[in-house]
Amino acid sequence: MRIAIDATGGDLGPATVLAGAIDGARRFGVGLLICGPEAEIRDALARLDTTGVDLEIIDAPESIAMDEQAAQAIRRKPRSSIAVALGLVRDGAAGGMVSAGHSGAVMAGALLVLGRAPGVERPAIAGFMPAIGGRTFVLDLGAVTDPKPAQIVQFAQMASIYMRGVHDIPNPTVGLLSNGEEASKGNQLVRETYPLLEAAPGVNFKGNVEGRDIPRRVVDIVVTDGFTGNVALKVAEGAAGLMAEVLRTEVTATLPRKLATLALRPAFDAVRRRLDYAETGGAQLLGVNGVAVVAHGRSSSRAIANAIGVAERGAAAGVPALLARYLPEFRAAAEGVGGRG
Amino acid sequence: MRIAIDATGGDLGPATVLAGAIDGARRFGVGLLICGPEAEIRDALARLDTTGVDLEIIDAPESIAMDEQAAQAIRRKPRSSIAVALGLVRDGAAGGMVSAGHSGAVMAGALLVLGRAPGVERPAIAGFMPAIGGRTFVLDLGAVTDPKPAQIVQFAQMASIYMRGVHDIPNPTVGLLSNGEEASKGNQLVRETYPLLEAAPGVNFKGNVEGRDIPRRVVDIVVTDGFTGNVALKVAEGAAGLMAEVLRTEVTATLPRKLATLALRPAFDAVRRRLDYAETGGAQLLGVNGVAVVAHGRSSSRAIANAIGVAERGAAAGVPALLARYLPEFRAAAEGVGGRG
Repeated sequence: MRIAIDATGGDLGPATVLAGAIDGARRFGVGLLICGPEAEIRDALARLDTTGVDLEIIDAPESIAMDEQAAQAIRRKPRSSIAVALGLVRDGAAGGMVSAGHSGAVMAGALLVLGRAPGVERPAIAGFMPAIGGRTFVLDLGAVTDPKPAQIVQFAQMASIYMRGVHDIPNPTVGLLSNGEEASKGNQLVRETYPLLEAAPGVNFKGNVEGRDIPRRVVDIVVTDGFTGNVALKVAEGAAGLMAEVLRTEVTATLPRKLATLALRPAFDAVRRRLDYAETGGAQLLGVNGVAVVAHGRSSSRAIANAIGVAERGAAAGVPALLARYLPEFRAAAEGVGGRG
Repeated sequence: MRIAIDATGGDLGPATVLAGAIDGARRFGVGLLICGPEAEIRDALARLDTTGVDLEIIDAPESIAMDEQAAQAIRRKPRSSIAVALGLVRDGAAGGMVSAGHSGAVMAGALLVLGRAPGVERPAIAGFMPAIGGRTFVLDLGAVTDPKPAQIVQFAQMASIYMRGVHDIPNPTVGLLSNGEEASKGNQLVRETYPLLEAAPGVNFKGNVEGRDIPRRVVDIVVTDGFTGNVALKVAEGAAGLMAEVLRTEVTATLPRKLATLALRPAFDAVRRRLDYAETGGAQLLGVNGVAVVAHGRSSSRAIANAIGVAERGAAAGVPALLARYLPEFRAAAEGVGGRG
């Protein structure tokens, strides 16, 4: 299997992205289709050890800047690295694609180039957030800011299919993000979604969960609208960054503290790795007809390597095919019980 | 000035609450009206040093459990510690009240017993969240889950009045919580609120902010609906707890690390204090006709003492009177320019 990688996306530059992609290719046993301006990529690759890695450069001279309007940019730049990588997935040359670039453009491009998987109303952005004793799978992280209740139900179904098919969790639990655990809590959208989730086929619904339950890993999957999910992800990321900053200031405040900190360097490194939101390997575009992974803009090479792994697992499990198989079954079951129709 | 304290609220019990209240009374130079079952309070006080503190027990034999429906409980239990404390504020016996109990019941009770300050449409819950180099004032944290755009504008005005009047920030900056900085970002509510905030008198609006900007302190005040604000607060609290947990595990994983950790104990304590969401002193009910402060359920005595300080400052500045004075001015200014009418 080959994975297409957007070489020019990412705040840290192509050298970081390529180093990570090559590392990921070795770790997960995949080939690489490297999309970007050919000469630039050739230069960057010359400084890396690519021994034994199956790779090919696919020239993509255009690039999409972070401040461009996503859908327009994708339409106007068919030779951008994002559009080229998505095209390789559409044409079957790549099993999946990874980009640390403009996430809105990847989403817009995936809809345009790959389209939706059969039966999907609105694709969502889904990703893991660090939690005590594991990670919590959260969606939507920003694709659909004002979903209908039935669309949130489908997010829950897609995530359940994903966790079963890709992560071997037989009956993943699902919580609905709210401002309190009781069924009566929530804004109007949540209160309307709650009974639909209770009745939804393919969803092991455990009721409402609160914001603090995401890092506590109370359920396997947390569903929410794309506005709230995006705020939650970025607040968590910011809070972790704040704590790291305050900790750094405190442990280096005096000479004795600095010396003690040297002995704890491995511990601090482990904490940083464990809680680095970039390191979870990026978010899936769940519901598009192909495997597309959005890595964090500030992805390290380790994060890119992890994202390659996420794309490989999604492609190997055939996520779009799983969605196309199970979503109609769930719909039929719901109609059979006179459910959501 | 005297502050009414709900002695029975709080997960850690009356002894913790009373120790904190007495500490707070000394630090902020206020007297205490201690509301709760008289015999129990007398017992708890006997084990504390109350020298020099002006205090009085106000018998309140009923209490509201955390799982009771808020509005019903307040109506059915007029002799609950929350209702009694609010009554003391209404009658002018107390300058403000503090409770670490059922926050929904305090909110419902405040609306019932104190009512809204003149000109206020919907009171909000407002509080400080830890941030790099300071704290960010965030509202609404859970009072109004589906506000109208104009109500979010009034939240921004109330918070601006509060920061000017109580925290001496002459022209506090305001951000609207969204899923991106651009004016085009947001869910429907945010997109409708944005232009109203741009035109709103009394609001130094700086545009959209993202979740990560709360702990980065990009603006003085972040406004959002009560659903999103509640999720943001609890996600941040949970993320800080996760990091503390992972850090604790790592720094005690080996004997050399444990020894080094001893030397860093003061640093870790400082970090914990700095980032403890309970320690910010509790949230204001901004917009009710009196000063009511909701402390965190897991408030330590230090947190309760801080909450006494928050109530004292709010009462000394006369927050309800400030709102009653400025909100009509803002409304008149908006009408004058043919604004929101």
